[in-house]
Amino acid sequence: MEYHSKLIEAAVNEIAKLPGIGKKTALRLALHLIKENENTTFSLTDSLNKLKSNIQFCKVCHGISDDEICMICSSSKRDRSLLCVVEESNDVMAIENTSQFSGVYHVLGGIISPIKSIGPAELKISSLLDRVSTQESEIKEIILALSPTLEGDTTSFYLHRKLKEFPIKISSISRGIAVGSDLEYADEITLGRSITARTEFK
Amino acid sequence: MEYHSKLIEAAVNEIAKLPGIGKKTALRLALHLIKENENTTFSLTDSLNKLKSNIQFCKVCHGISDDEICMICSSSKRDRSLLCVVEESNDVMAIENTSQFSGVYHVLGGIISPIKSIGPAELKISSLLDRVSTQESEIKEIILALSPTLEGDTTSFYLHRKLKEFPIKISSISRGIAVGSDLEYADEITLGRSITARTEFK
Repeated sequence: MEYHSKLIEAAVNEIAKLPGIGKKTALRLALHLIKENENTTFSLTDSLNKLKSNIQFCKVCHGISDDEICMICSSSKRDRSLLCVVEESNDVMAIENTSQFSGVYHVLGGIISPIKSIGPAELKISSLLDRVSTQESEIKEIILALSPTLEGDTTSFYLHRKLKEFPIKISSISRGIAVGSDLEYADEITLGRSITARTEFK
Repeated sequence: MEYHSKLIEAAVNEIAKLPGIGKKTALRLALHLIKENENTTFSLTDSLNKLKSNIQFCKVCHGISDDEICMICSSSKRDRSLLCVVEESNDVMAIENTSQFSGVYHVLGGIISPIKSIGPAELKISSLLDRVSTQESEIKEIILALSPTLEGDTTSFYLHRKLKEFPIKISSISRGIAVGSDLEYADEITLGRSITARTEFK
C-alpha cells in the first residue's frame, strides 16, 4: 500500500507492529489522530513513554509495579498465608477483578514450554522457592492458577514436585463449565473433568 | 477494572480512546509494550508525535500531505484534466492503490449530513468551484467518488447541480456487484442497479 506521505507511512508501520493490528487498522488510527486535536496524540504518546520509562517489576512477586514493591505486596490488608502463582501480570489483574482473592501473588513470567525453549530456569521459580523456604515465610497455601493447557499443566506438575517437600497445602484453580455457558457446547475434556470434580451441594 | 499501577491505568485509558479499541485490547497493547524493548515504544511514540506535529493539508486538494502541496498535486505525471472528488484522504489512498487513476484529487473533508449538521459550507466545496472556474483550469472531467449512501448521494447531487454550469463532463464511480462476491448474497438495491446499469460486451 502507498500512502503518499512519509509521515503517515512511518506512523502506520510503527502502529502495525502492535499485536493484532494490521496495516488497515493502523492507517485508520493514524488518520483518527490527525483529525483529533493535538492533545489526543500528545497525551497518548506521553502516557506510553512514561509507562515504558518508569514501569518496574516488583522485587517480591515480579509483577508489574509503579514502585520497587507493588501495591499488592506492600498492602497490609492482604493475607500473606495465601500465595497465588500466575503466569503473567495480566493474570493478576484478572484475578483481582474477581474480588475473590485476598492473598498475595507470584508472577512466573511465563510457563514451561519446550517449543519456545522456556525451561524452569527462565521462570521466577527459584525466587518462588526462596519465598517459601525463607524463615519469615507465612505461606500456608499455594494456589497454582496457570492456563489449562499442556504447558500450564506441565508447569503446575513441575511446581507441585518442587513444592511438596514444604509443609504447605498446594491447590489448583478448579476447571469446569464456565458460568453462563451452555453444556451442549462444552468440549468433552472440560465436561468430563467437571463431572469427575463435581462439588457437593451444601 | 483495576490495574494496581497508575502508569498502566493512564496508558490504558489513553489507548482505549482510539476508535475500535476497548479497555481489554488497550491493556494487552500496554503489556506488550512493557515486554518489548524500549525502542518499540519510543519509535512508536516518536512517529506519532512527528505525524501530528508535521502533517499538513495540501493547499490545492486539501488531502493529507507532508508539504504545502501534496505529492500528487505537485507531480508532473498526473493528468490535470481529470479530477476525482472524494470524502477523505483515506479514499485517495484507496483509489491510488488501484493504480487505475492518473488524475488529481479534491478532498471534501466529509459529506453533507444534516444529522451531524454538516452542510455544504463545512466542506471544501467552494474551493472545488474555484479550482474549476479559474482561468488556468485544465479540468475536463470530474469524477464523483463518494460513498454509495444517502448522504453520499445527496452530496453528489448537490455537487452535480453546482458543477453543471461549467463545460465539464461529470461522472460518478459505477455501482454494482463487487468483484469476487456472490450474486446470491448481494442486496436487492445493488443487484437492481447492476442490472439497470449493465455494460455491453465489447
